Amino acid sequence: MKVAIIQQYKTADIEANRNRLVAEIRRAAAQGARLIVNQELHDSLYFCQTEDVDTFALASDLKVSGELYSALARELGVVIVTSMFERRAAGLYHNTAVVYDADGSEAGRYRKTHIPDDPGFYEKFYFTPGDLGIHPIDTSVGRLGVLVCWDQWYPEAARLMALQGAELLIYPTAIGWQDNDSADEKARQLEAWTTVQRGHAVANGIPVIAANRVGHEDDPSGATSGITFWGSSFAAGPQGELLWRAPADSEALGIVDIDLQRCENVRRWWPFLRDRRIDLYSPLASRYLD
Amino acid sequence: MKVAIIQQYKTADIEANRNRLVAEIRRAAAQGARLIVNQELHDSLYFCQTEDVDTFALASDLKVSGELYSALARELGVVIVTSMFERRAAGLYHNTAVVYDADGSEAGRYRKTHIPDDPGFYEKFYFTPGDLGIHPIDTSVGRLGVLVCWDQWYPEAARLMALQGAELLIYPTAIGWQDNDSADEKARQLEAWTTVQRGHAVANGIPVIAANRVGHEDDPSGATSGITFWGSSFAAGPQGELLWRAPADSEALGIVDIDLQRCENVRRWWPFLRDRRIDLYSPLASRYLD
Repeated sequence: MKVAIIQQYKTADIEANRNRLVAEIRRAAAQGARLIVNQELHDSLYFCQTEDVDTFALASDLKVSGELYSALARELGVVIVTSMFERRAAGLYHNTAVVYDADGSEAGRYRKTHIPDDPGFYEKFYFTPGDLGIHPIDTSVGRLGVLVCWDQWYPEAARLMALQGAELLIYPTAIGWQDNDSADEKARQLEAWTTVQRGHAVANGIPVIAANRVGHEDDPSGATSGITFWGSSFAAGPQGELLWRAPADSEALGIVDIDLQRCENVRRWWPFLRDRRIDLYSPLASRYLD
Repeated sequence: MKVAIIQQYKTADIEANRNRLVAEIRRAAAQGARLIVNQELHDSLYFCQTEDVDTFALASDLKVSGELYSALARELGVVIVTSMFERRAAGLYHNTAVVYDADGSEAGRYRKTHIPDDPGFYEKFYFTPGDLGIHPIDTSVGRLGVLVCWDQWYPEAARLMALQGAELLIYPTAIGWQDNDSADEKARQLEAWTTVQRGHAVANGIPVIAANRVGHEDDPSGATSGITFWGSSFAAGPQGELLWRAPADSEALGIVDIDLQRCENVRRWWPFLRDRRIDLYSPLASRYLD
């Protein structure tokens, strides 16, 4: 199955962002992609660099903001993984991935469960932790383990998806460097980000798709020099092997052939699910064991 | 803290294996190592290539087989992580890591919990799954998260160690290639093995030490052409960064400086433990969620 990974820079012009994204989705479909994975919060700048109540105006009812992608999925006959700023009620917002099936219907949605809060990534201010649980979404191209950004650091989330039969792990994401980090530190961060997700592929015997943002975005508060999103979107196979990787500094469209049958074989060779010591795992639901 | 990683080939001559290992432990201590990590089942060949009841004769009371290492730890003033074939009772055997503290006392032991069973690695025949649970071992050089080989594929085991304050993950291991695998497949396997463990380092913000066997060992049954253990022992820091890696085809002694203070900083930058969704993790103790 051909999977498209779209890596773009974003501007403050939402209409322009959407137009450029639609053009790229059309290009991906024309190249045979049946599943199209977008980066996190693809309609806008990454607005969590500051805490500003006016920014909630960017959120919307997903029925409205998703209509464009639903129509596009139907027209092109492709499955599209989107990532949007959901206004659920006044004062209640989520970072939500919506998956549109090839007939334009909503196959399912996932509300980001693990919410970061670090300098420049003030997400706990904007996003209520997801209350839909961690569950894969069934589509016409397979059962998709859609998670979002910070989730990617959590082996628990990946494993829960695998235990529910997810055939692919998919991470829309927005991650980058603060400009005052050293070159060494930047390299370690990028490699750590790639490694932990490839690790999920290995531990669970399923492919991983990560779609990241690229380019520099200023800090509106001026407190920092902003974030340079590191691109490097990638696809890895069920042994964690890199199948494709985007550049760190420019837009990219990856069209990657994913062989879902290969997972069956890899899990026969490496039957990790067989040997899990579930009698010992209950303490994983503890905050800390002291 | 200087940590030594010893990577050796083994022969059928147990006395010779132990003598060569003792020499290497002395060399490591002379180079300033305070913690010395050995490979899995370092006293013998990897005997699980066939199922043979006579092989149980290799197992012993750990008080007996460990005396040498206990005395050496005391003499050299170092902490030694050993891996032995434990005879606990008639018909009851374990694959057990024993840690000797710098005063020669037994700091603790860990009985391998995840037991593989694959062609050439018939461990379920030999080793009863560990019943000591998954707990770190306190020593004079820190709290050590000692796991063994197949455990290395399980994020659950690494996380349980981290949640109990382990400062290092340590994997004595014996893993290699079957000779009929293609070069591509061999490369993927070695990289997957490295990646999943580096992923544990990243997800938990702690260093990982893996000590592997090296060299070819015949299949006594003649059914296969045997196993070529792939060496490539390594140390990774708390961002998964490779600090040292041994060659795939020869013996090696790594002396690696591990900065335990660095973990404190890495976990401040990447506070993954803060955001775990423990309300969602109970199903991890299920075999499968169907």
